Amino acid sequence: MGKILFVGVAGSSDPKPHPRAATKAERFGAKLAEYRDEVKLLTGGDGGLMKIVSKAFVERGGETIGIIPLEDERRPLNHPRYNPYNTMTIKTGVTFQARSIILVRSSDSFVILGGGAGTIIEAFLAYLYRIPSIVIEETGYPTDKLKEFAMEGYLDHRKLIKAYFTEDPGEAAEKAYTLAKSRTA
Amino acid sequence: MGKILFVGVAGSSDPKPHPRAATKAERFGAKLAEYRDEVKLLTGGDGGLMKIVSKAFVERGGETIGIIPLEDERRPLNHPRYNPYNTMTIKTGVTFQARSIILVRSSDSFVILGGGAGTIIEAFLAYLYRIPSIVIEETGYPTDKLKEFAMEGYLDHRKLIKAYFTEDPGEAAEKAYTLAKSRTA
Amino acid sequence: MGKILFVGVAGSSDPKPHPRAATKAERFGAKLAEYRDEVKLLTGGDGGLMKIVSKAFVERGGETIGIIPLEDERRPLNHPRYNPYNTMTIKTGVTFQARSIILVRSSDSFVILGGGAGTIIEAFLAYLYRIPSIVIEETGYPTDKLKEFAMEGYLDHRKLIKAYFTEDPGEAAEKAYTLAKSRTA
Amino acid sequence: MGKILFVGVAGSSDPKPHPRAATKAERFGAKLAEYRDEVKLLTGGDGGLMKIVSKAFVERGGETIGIIPLEDERRPLNHPRYNPYNTMTIKTGVTFQARSIILVRSSDSFVILGGGAGTIIEAFLAYLYRIPSIVIEETGYPTDKLKEFAMEGYLDHRKLIKAYFTEDPGEAAEKAYTLAKSRTA
Repeated sequence: MGKILFVGVAGSSDPKPHPRAATKAERFGAKLAEYRDEVKLLTGGDGGLMKIVSKAFVERGGETIGIIPLEDERRPLNHPRYNPYNTMTIKTGVTFQARSIILVRSSDSFVILGGGAGTIIEAFLAYLYRIPSIVIEETGYPTDKLKEFAMEGYLDHRKLIKAYFTEDPGEAAEKAYTLAKSRTA
Repeated sequence: MGKILFVGVAGSSDPKPHPRAATKAERFGAKLAEYRDEVKLLTGGDGGLMKIVSKAFVERGGETIGIIPLEDERRPLNHPRYNPYNTMTIKTGVTFQARSIILVRSSDSFVILGGGAGTIIEAFLAYLYRIPSIVIEETGYPTDKLKEFAMEGYLDHRKLIKAYFTEDPGEAAEKAYTLAKSRTA
Repeated sequence: MGKILFVGVAGSSDPKPHPRAATKAERFGAKLAEYRDEVKLLTGGDGGLMKIVSKAFVERGGETIGIIPLEDERRPLNHPRYNPYNTMTIKTGVTFQARSIILVRSSDSFVILGGGAGTIIEAFLAYLYRIPSIVIEETGYPTDKLKEFAMEGYLDHRKLIKAYFTEDPGEAAEKAYTLAKSRTA
Repeated sequence: MGKILFVGVAGSSDPKPHPRAATKAERFGAKLAEYRDEVKLLTGGDGGLMKIVSKAFVERGGETIGIIPLEDERRPLNHPRYNPYNTMTIKTGVTFQARSIILVRSSDSFVILGGGAGTIIEAFLAYLYRIPSIVIEETGYPTDKLKEFAMEGYLDHRKLIKAYFTEDPGEAAEKAYTLAKSRTA
């Protein structure tokens, strides 16, 4: 058996995400599930897009690991952001943002599903840690502006690692698999 | 499929651990592997007793998650404390001790295999987080003194949760499984 | 004696920062030092712009607190990024980015002196934690793009707290003092 | 002006601490205040013994830094564990125990005022980080057992650094100052 690959995702925890982003997250999870024997899906374990992508992945036989912050540990089952699709959970005991650091560092490749400030921070973390990343575009979220912010795919002037941009969630899933695979070869 | 149970362990990372502790760690891992379909083994991902217990568990078909600190992320393959039996690794980006917090919090039950200050801290963390824990005795390490330190199994005056003490690693494995199972029921 | 105010700053640790940013950081520190009896300057304790602003503040009688990451703890005195202007240091034992979380959360107001991905993350952290913040513009760094990225000063669609933008470091210092003062009143 | 010394303390946050421990904490803070021009007192910023020692230090002109966990950030002023004697506060955004790591690492010397599991963990952290430490004895708390647990002052078999034990809080204060001073010389 080969090494297990960790594909991480970042996305809005808004319980009612933008329909376009929701559709793309669902399609991404479904496509990535084709690689479920080699890949675990890592998320922040929260609701919104994280729940949608986890559901799509788990329902097709995949396993997820939710890396959850202190604030989410005691979330009741009927909370609008409760995510029942975390196959496993890691309880970090830290804020949402410190949790993001662990999520990103642990990933072999990282995908931005769409979101606001917290998701944008995760995109910059992936850049700083030189984790290969893919940004899904046209989601209706502020992360749509990342391409314009970047210079030729680089998120700052040091050109540490290039991010990939695509509107197509299926392509994002294949790219995430390929990048994780080649990184751990 | 039922919920995956996380059994965490703490133990010395000394590359040449006490023979008695090494034997007990090996027997613990072998016995726990009988529950491999329900249980993942969580460790600090390091060498020494953590490597021994992981090897015993993985060679019998189990899967492990190593929760590793910043200092261990760039460990070369030939390092005496390198642990090739981490099926998966979570990269925390923090010190050994802050890593221990994540390891303990994420565990459904926690087993002390024997060790020094770092392992003792993990025993107290399990107590504070009310994680059911088992201390394996007669290992040759300072954790052997924990029973005497405790009052009727409680690690301080608040009597938050009782620790179990046993010299028998097989019994420790069964107890770890049972406690994790009943906690997540 | 009134409460001590914490004005935090983020800036590139590049040992040879852009001259424009360097001049602005120096002027900011000098101006803020007028409030040295009420204000402590919080930085990441590193070199580059952090060193320049700390020097300007300390040489005028102010006191600084450097919140330093694990990687900086053992920095030798002749390291190009060593910062001798940390009056006090807090040793966090975590990555640069987890350190940033502590720096930003502890600040009563926060100023972006100019920088790349790490500094941008700190701007978004201040936004998420609703810490009043000021972005100094025209520095030659990627943070110059933050104004364009923001919508009417808000760094994402939730409009949690507005950031102030100014090209004038003296104005930034006065604003930082006023915002910190009113927040802790 | 010489370097500012950080003397850290650990102690029970119990709002009604053991009278013996309370008296010793008060006397320790009063004695340490004789060095207030050189020393800042670092605590976990909480109530109980931390509040008592901070009060004694601040009322004699000293300044304290409270390193507070996520759970304490939003503590109301009338909370039984609210501590108004934090001259400055660092907001860590982490659990009590991860906060302890930052507190201990930042200290030039460290004093155990008496407490349970959390305080014991801090004693072991100081040992692991080789921070010179002093344990105040005869407090009525489980930390009274540390001397017996230790072997000739060493908290485990590796003999990393010796802890000092004394029943006299005044002597503890002088020792804490001397050890911090010699460490940073």
